[in-house]
Amino acid sequence: MSYGATPAVDQRPSPALPLLAALDVGGTKIAGGLVDADGVLLHRVQRPTPAREGAGTVLAAVRQVLDELAGHPLWACVRAVGIGSAGPVDIEAGTVSPVNIPAWRAFPLRDEVAVHPAVWELPVVLGGDAVAMAAAEHWRGAARPYRNALCLVVSTGIGAGLIIDGRLHAGRTGNAGHLGHISVDFGGRPCPCGSHGCVEGLASGTAIARTAAESGWRPAGGDASAAAVAVAARAGDPIALHAFDRAGRALAAGIAATATLVEIEAAIVGGGVARAGDLLLGPLRRHLDAYATLPFAAGVVVVPAELGTDAGLVGAAALARPVLRLDPAAH
Amino acid sequence: MSYGATPAVDQRPSPALPLLAALDVGGTKIAGGLVDADGVLLHRVQRPTPAREGAGTVLAAVRQVLDELAGHPLWACVRAVGIGSAGPVDIEAGTVSPVNIPAWRAFPLRDEVAVHPAVWELPVVLGGDAVAMAAAEHWRGAARPYRNALCLVVSTGIGAGLIIDGRLHAGRTGNAGHLGHISVDFGGRPCPCGSHGCVEGLASGTAIARTAAESGWRPAGGDASAAAVAVAARAGDPIALHAFDRAGRALAAGIAATATLVEIEAAIVGGGVARAGDLLLGPLRRHLDAYATLPFAAGVVVVPAELGTDAGLVGAAALARPVLRLDPAAH
Repeated sequence: MSYGATPAVDQRPSPALPLLAALDVGGTKIAGGLVDADGVLLHRVQRPTPAREGAGTVLAAVRQVLDELAGHPLWACVRAVGIGSAGPVDIEAGTVSPVNIPAWRAFPLRDEVAVHPAVWELPVVLGGDAVAMAAAEHWRGAARPYRNALCLVVSTGIGAGLIIDGRLHAGRTGNAGHLGHISVDFGGRPCPCGSHGCVEGLASGTAIARTAAESGWRPAGGDASAAAVAVAARAGDPIALHAFDRAGRALAAGIAATATLVEIEAAIVGGGVARAGDLLLGPLRRHLDAYATLPFAAGVVVVPAELGTDAGLVGAAALARPVLRLDPAAH
Repeated sequence: MSYGATPAVDQRPSPALPLLAALDVGGTKIAGGLVDADGVLLHRVQRPTPAREGAGTVLAAVRQVLDELAGHPLWACVRAVGIGSAGPVDIEAGTVSPVNIPAWRAFPLRDEVAVHPAVWELPVVLGGDAVAMAAAEHWRGAARPYRNALCLVVSTGIGAGLIIDGRLHAGRTGNAGHLGHISVDFGGRPCPCGSHGCVEGLASGTAIARTAAESGWRPAGGDASAAAVAVAARAGDPIALHAFDRAGRALAAGIAATATLVEIEAAIVGGGVARAGDLLLGPLRRHLDAYATLPFAAGVVVVPAELGTDAGLVGAAALARPVLRLDPAAH
C-alpha cells in the first residue's frame, strides 16, 4: 500500500488528512516518512546511521532526515511526529540507549527532535522500534482482526510489542512486550542481560546459528548464519531442522506465557528469521499447542507479519496517532 | 477494617452507599457478604461447599447464602452483585468449572445467580477468585499505591491477577494473570495442565513439600506438608531451606517474565505459603534481582498481601464496582 522508496506524491492526489511524520532510528539507517491518516506511506527518505560516531554526529543525521522531510510540500499537513527507535528506550524520560549506537546513552531524542525548527509546536511521540512495529501491524497489517495480540520480530535479536484490549500496551517506559528477555529455562544458559535461559538466547537468528554449530553442523560454504542453517534445513539436514525446532519451542513457551498472563488471540511473527516461513512457524505452532493448554490460553493463532520494510515508518506514525485523537483541532 | 465473622450493622451507622453484594465460591466454603462503597465488609455469611454432591446441590447452597444475605435490612441498598469463583472461569460465557467442584463444568453460575428473586434486575459480575483477590488488594490492600502490579496467591496451587494502567486486567475470559501455569523450565517436568515446567509445579505449597521429599527430607513427625517444611527451614534444615529457595527462584522467574512483558512496579504476595514470610520472600527477592535485570523490569518491589480472610469477598465486590460507575443512577 505504500509508494515504495521513490514515491511521487501526485500519484495520490488526495491523501487522507491529517498527515503524520515518522522517524525510524536504527543502528544501520535513519529513515523518515510522511504517513497519511489511513496509514499509507506517501514519502520516504533515508540516511545511513553513523553508528560509531559521536552523539552529535548521529543527531546531525536525524536532523538532516527531518530537513529533507520538512522540505516536502505536504509537510504543512503534518500534525504530529512519531519516532520508533532501537532500544532500550524510556518514553517517560524521552530518552533512548540503542545497543548499536554506543554514543547514545539516555540520549534525549524526543526533545532533540522537538526543537527542530520544522517540528516546533508539533507533538512528538517516542517509542521502541518493536513496539512501533506492533502498532503498525495492528493498524495496517496482520494484527488488525485482533483485540489482543503479541507482535514479534525474530531477527538477530527478538523484539515484540503487545496489543491489549484493542490498544497498544507500551508500558510506562515503553518496553512492554519484551519477549526476547523472558526466561523459559530458568536454570539455563546465562544471557548477556544478566538473566538465564531468555527466549532471545534460544530462538533468535544468532541462537539458531549457534545451536546448529554446537550440535555439529558444518556449512558446506563458509556461511554459518541462520539463513544458511535454513537452507540446510530445507534440504533435510537433521541438525539444521533441530535448530529451528528448538527455536520454535522456545518461542512457543514464551508466546504461551504471554497468552497465560494477558490472554491473547494471535501472535504475529515478522523479522528476517521469520522469512524462513514454515521452517520456523511449523515447529512454533506444534509446540504452542503443547505449552498453551488451558482453555483460555489455547487456540492462539500464529500469523506471519504483513508489513515489510515500511513497518518501521508506519509504526512510528502509528505511535503518534493517539495524540491526534486527543486534539480535536487537528482533525 | 471489617466487622469480622459476626458483625452488627449498627456498629457502623452510615456505611458508604451504594452497597455491593459479594459471593466467594470455593471448593471448601461458599461465603456471601455486603460490602460498602469504601470496600468495608459490613456483613458476612458462610456455608460449607457440598463439593462432592451434584450440580444442583452445590447451587442450592449458593441460593441459601443469597437468601440469608437478602434477609439483611441493608440488602435494599445493594446495587450490584460480584462473584469470585474458583476456576477456571469463563466470564464471557458466565460459566465456571472449579477443579474442586467436579459436578460444575461450564456451569452457568452468573445466570443462576441473576435469576435469584432478590437479585432480579441487579447487574451480576463474575470473575475468578485469584483475579478477585487482585482487585481487592488494589482497592483496599497492598496494591493501592501501584498502577501496574501482579497479585499472587501462593497456596496449594498458585493463582494471580494483574493490575495494568490502574485497572484490573481480567482478560477476555477472565483468566489473565495465570502465573501458576507459565513455563519457566520449558524442558522440565510435565505439568497436569499438559505443559512443562510450570511455576505452580515448582513453587506451590504442594511443590515445596515434594521438592523437600525428593531431596531426602524426612519430617520428624508424620507431617510432610509445606508448613512442616517451613518449620524445619526456620530451624536451619538445609534441605528445607533449599525447597523454599527453589520455589522463590521459580516465582522470581515468573514475576520477572511478567515485568518484562507488561511492566509492573510491584508483586503482591498472599496465600497460605506466603505466610512463611521471609523464608519465601527472601529468596524470591534475591532471585528477582537476578532475573529482572533490564532497567525497565528491574526494581519490582515484592510486598506481602494486606487483606486476610476477607479478601475473597472484598474482591468479589470489587469486580462489580465498574458496573456502578457506568450507571449514574446508582450514585
